[in-house]
Amino acid sequence: MTRTVIESKSRTVVIGFDEPFCVIGERINPTGRKKLAAELEAGDFSTVERDALEQVACGAMVLDVNAGVVYNSNPNPNETEPPLMKAMIELVQGLVDVPLCIDSSVPAALEAGLAAAEGRPLLNSVTGEEERLERVLPLVRKYNVPVVAISNDDTGISEDPDVRFAVAKKIVERAADYGIPAHDIVVDPLVMPVGAMASAGQQVFALVRRLRDELGVNTTCGASNISFGLPHRHGINAAFLPMAIGAGMTSAIMNPIRPVEMEAVRAANFLMNHDANGSAWIAFSRVLDQVAEGTPFAEASRAAAEAGAGRGGRRRRRG
Amino acid sequence: MTRTVIESKSRTVVIGFDEPFCVIGERINPTGRKKLAAELEAGDFSTVERDALEQVACGAMVLDVNAGVVYNSNPNPNETEPPLMKAMIELVQGLVDVPLCIDSSVPAALEAGLAAAEGRPLLNSVTGEEERLERVLPLVRKYNVPVVAISNDDTGISEDPDVRFAVAKKIVERAADYGIPAHDIVVDPLVMPVGAMASAGQQVFALVRRLRDELGVNTTCGASNISFGLPHRHGINAAFLPMAIGAGMTSAIMNPIRPVEMEAVRAANFLMNHDANGSAWIAFSRVLDQVAEGTPFAEASRAAAEAGAGRGGRRRRRG
Repeated sequence: MTRTVIESKSRTVVIGFDEPFCVIGERINPTGRKKLAAELEAGDFSTVERDALEQVACGAMVLDVNAGVVYNSNPNPNETEPPLMKAMIELVQGLVDVPLCIDSSVPAALEAGLAAAEGRPLLNSVTGEEERLERVLPLVRKYNVPVVAISNDDTGISEDPDVRFAVAKKIVERAADYGIPAHDIVVDPLVMPVGAMASAGQQVFALVRRLRDELGVNTTCGASNISFGLPHRHGINAAFLPMAIGAGMTSAIMNPIRPVEMEAVRAANFLMNHDANGSAWIAFSRVLDQVAEGTPFAEASRAAAEAGAGRGGRRRRRG
Repeated sequence: MTRTVIESKSRTVVIGFDEPFCVIGERINPTGRKKLAAELEAGDFSTVERDALEQVACGAMVLDVNAGVVYNSNPNPNETEPPLMKAMIELVQGLVDVPLCIDSSVPAALEAGLAAAEGRPLLNSVTGEEERLERVLPLVRKYNVPVVAISNDDTGISEDPDVRFAVAKKIVERAADYGIPAHDIVVDPLVMPVGAMASAGQQVFALVRRLRDELGVNTTCGASNISFGLPHRHGINAAFLPMAIGAGMTSAIMNPIRPVEMEAVRAANFLMNHDANGSAWIAFSRVLDQVAEGTPFAEASRAAAEAGAGRGGRRRRRG
């Protein structure tokens, strides 16, 4: 029974075959968000704050934190990203109590995040690239944290799922050489856009089953990649997530502030028998009722969480 | 490669492992529809007509026809159902060109439907009950049609999926004694409500995989049973269908006039690589655009089908 334990100062989240699907909120990431990048360069963290609170309200169980901004004033991320990562981690863990996922392609930023984070964060990521294995696995070992392993290597991303499986296997074996157990590796088998590669869905489902059966590892993915470039993306995502969960995927880095995908995840949890008595579904259905009446999803989720926690059942005023 | 061939006079539908999911429209059925039952007793077929046209417009590939009404004037379905089935089959196949699924628990009604139907209808259903096997399998043989096999027997519906698998196996073997091939058996593994049985989803997914791998048969189910008694049923259904499709289910008897479930099925087809170039998804996304603007789903679907068929791209007037 594979269990990947992630912790904040006060909360534990387990990614596992017998656990509800772990939703890792993707939004704290300046990649492709020019406005956020400019804010961060100016030292304005208001969007990060809002994204942290909103994602947790909507059901994110872990928050990804990515500080990958290229400053206009300094184009060297090796200099700018580590202090920004530290600042963002400190800010976010001061606001919310969920565990964090430290996301960077800059090893010094990963280390800065590890040093700043309380508890046992998830590190994102190592790949099968030699240089990256040698830089990141010692950090994983030193800080005793779980790590996302992306199945590309020095030859790039293979379109052949057997090659991607082999890369994942290599990372798991190399990690073992460092004393890192398989249950601390969360493999991302890489989701291709189904609009560009017709077999993309089938590849992921087959890979997830193999990774689970043959390597015994948990899995994750950037879920929305599947629908890249297509109309009505949320409809594709909302079918992909249950199918991936049915195939055995145990987490995803995704946007939790859209109710469509979160509804799909919660329904899939229920159908996987990971929602005892359907109590999470029934609570969520009350949120959907509010959303149908026009309340924003985050606000409805927050109100339901407060009522559920028995804090006097206060209702937020609708602005 | 299992292929179950169903035909109307002019159209062939194949249920198969490498085919888009076969949506069998469930609505032409007076069970639990008092108004429809009263209409049928009075010889009024207007609802049947509307249900036939609307379901096909919305994407039903096969229409289930059930004449299971108990007349106030005559409580004996053995007398009333056969002529009503004949009338309904003749009406529906005169209106739409999709193949039909003849649905009754009255063997004489099944035979009346078989005699009336053009092409190669799907018979619904045989069970593992001895009397039913002996009555229905000779009809299947005589008319050379495929049949839905429901996995309950004289002991009832087992909660043990191994027993339900054994019942399905028995039906397939008994059919073979009659010279009926496995590819003409479409097994319904029986979907329990997940609100009443927490393992209901998992049971179905595991059973579908076994039925496919070990018996080589196509599968179907009454999809909406899964969400019986729960709030926001469509959300459960819309996750269940992609998960069942991912597990290998190849058809369902379901309500096609709700866009949520049809969106889930079409997205799952795309993700299973059963929608070349995503062309069906892209066409469907235009229907969703219209629905978002307030056009009823059936009307938007009809307009898109007409435009797609190149019939001059006429647009229906909005009433």
